[in-house]
Amino acid sequence: MRFKNGLILALDVTDREKAMDVVEKTAPWVDAVKINYPLVLSVGSNIINDISEVSSVICDFKVADIPNTNRLIVEEAVRRGADGVIVHGFVGSDSVQACVDAADKKDVFMVTEMSHPGGREYTAEVGGELAKRASEFGVRGIIAPATRPERISALKELLGELQILSPGVGAQGGSAVDAIKAGADAVIVGRSIYQAEDPGNAAKEIRPLK
Amino acid sequence: MRFKNGLILALDVTDREKAMDVVEKTAPWVDAVKINYPLVLSVGSNIINDISEVSSVICDFKVADIPNTNRLIVEEAVRRGADGVIVHGFVGSDSVQACVDAADKKDVFMVTEMSHPGGREYTAEVGGELAKRASEFGVRGIIAPATRPERISALKELLGELQILSPGVGAQGGSAVDAIKAGADAVIVGRSIYQAEDPGNAAKEIRPLK
Repeated sequence: MRFKNGLILALDVTDREKAMDVVEKTAPWVDAVKINYPLVLSVGSNIINDISEVSSVICDFKVADIPNTNRLIVEEAVRRGADGVIVHGFVGSDSVQACVDAADKKDVFMVTEMSHPGGREYTAEVGGELAKRASEFGVRGIIAPATRPERISALKELLGELQILSPGVGAQGGSAVDAIKAGADAVIVGRSIYQAEDPGNAAKEIRPLK
Repeated sequence: MRFKNGLILALDVTDREKAMDVVEKTAPWVDAVKINYPLVLSVGSNIINDISEVSSVICDFKVADIPNTNRLIVEEAVRRGADGVIVHGFVGSDSVQACVDAADKKDVFMVTEMSHPGGREYTAEVGGELAKRASEFGVRGIIAPATRPERISALKELLGELQILSPGVGAQGGSAVDAIKAGADAVIVGRSIYQAEDPGNAAKEIRPLK
């Protein structure tokens, strides 16, 4: 997946009907749908297959286990139709490498640090080094918060060809246009779209640099 | 869950029939069955419900997301019958706390550091501090490798009432008896049981201090 001014829908719902309704209504305006474990655990992992028939799918599983378990998780996500998987970098290079190998021609995006308050306790300290090592790990890109455009700019310089996907747009206060201008390749938007009365129109409106 | 000389089966298989067969054959000898995402993604999350009808279940999901997502994951695991959930500490105190709150009267066990080679790159540096903070986080216990009994002893002193669950017994070289003597409250055993011709007998034989 190579995004450019992209829009990724964070489908943080746990109801199958609602999920598929939003996916279908927003499909013309989003480049990929990002799903997480709460949805998969609630409605079953075949939701990956179902969404993949309508849109590109990124499984935001924050994969963070030993290499062999990581491999099995990524293989299963890809087998069900995922185009990308989000994994944690802090578990170490062998664990990330196992994901990249298992993804085959699909893409792995790495979390280098997390922006919630607790993310500052431990992940912030290693985030810089993980970002520097991202190319070495073979990932397609990293995740970096849209709420801090200056951080995106700094990372973009460091990462070169690697992609930056930025959550935090909309309800969390970040601006899609600012994130893209700072160097993000795609913004990740959730509530502002799936909670809207007209999710299709909301996606169209929020789409960066449309 | 309060283990004493306990045996936890690490059910690292991805086939439903095999999974349920091993669970049923080993039920008299194991105190809990630990399952992971590869099984859940392969066969569906109702495997949690199914196993919970035969045995106590620990969902080893290495939960590592922001507080709200962590909450949803743990709630869903518990709703399906899990008695315990394994979460990562490195994502920070608020993320762990969200798991503890969501688990209600069920138990959260925290990964403080990981023993695979890549685990030394980043998790080893924060493992000590996370173990020290475990009581503050409200978790039931932590995970510590049976391959290093001297480490278990040191952690046991630090942790007081908290429990230590130790993987790495059997195929990975650790001894169940040594881990328990060092202070582990339960050992976690996988391949030596589920790959055995007679899993029930293997569980009976490996059960520590039987």
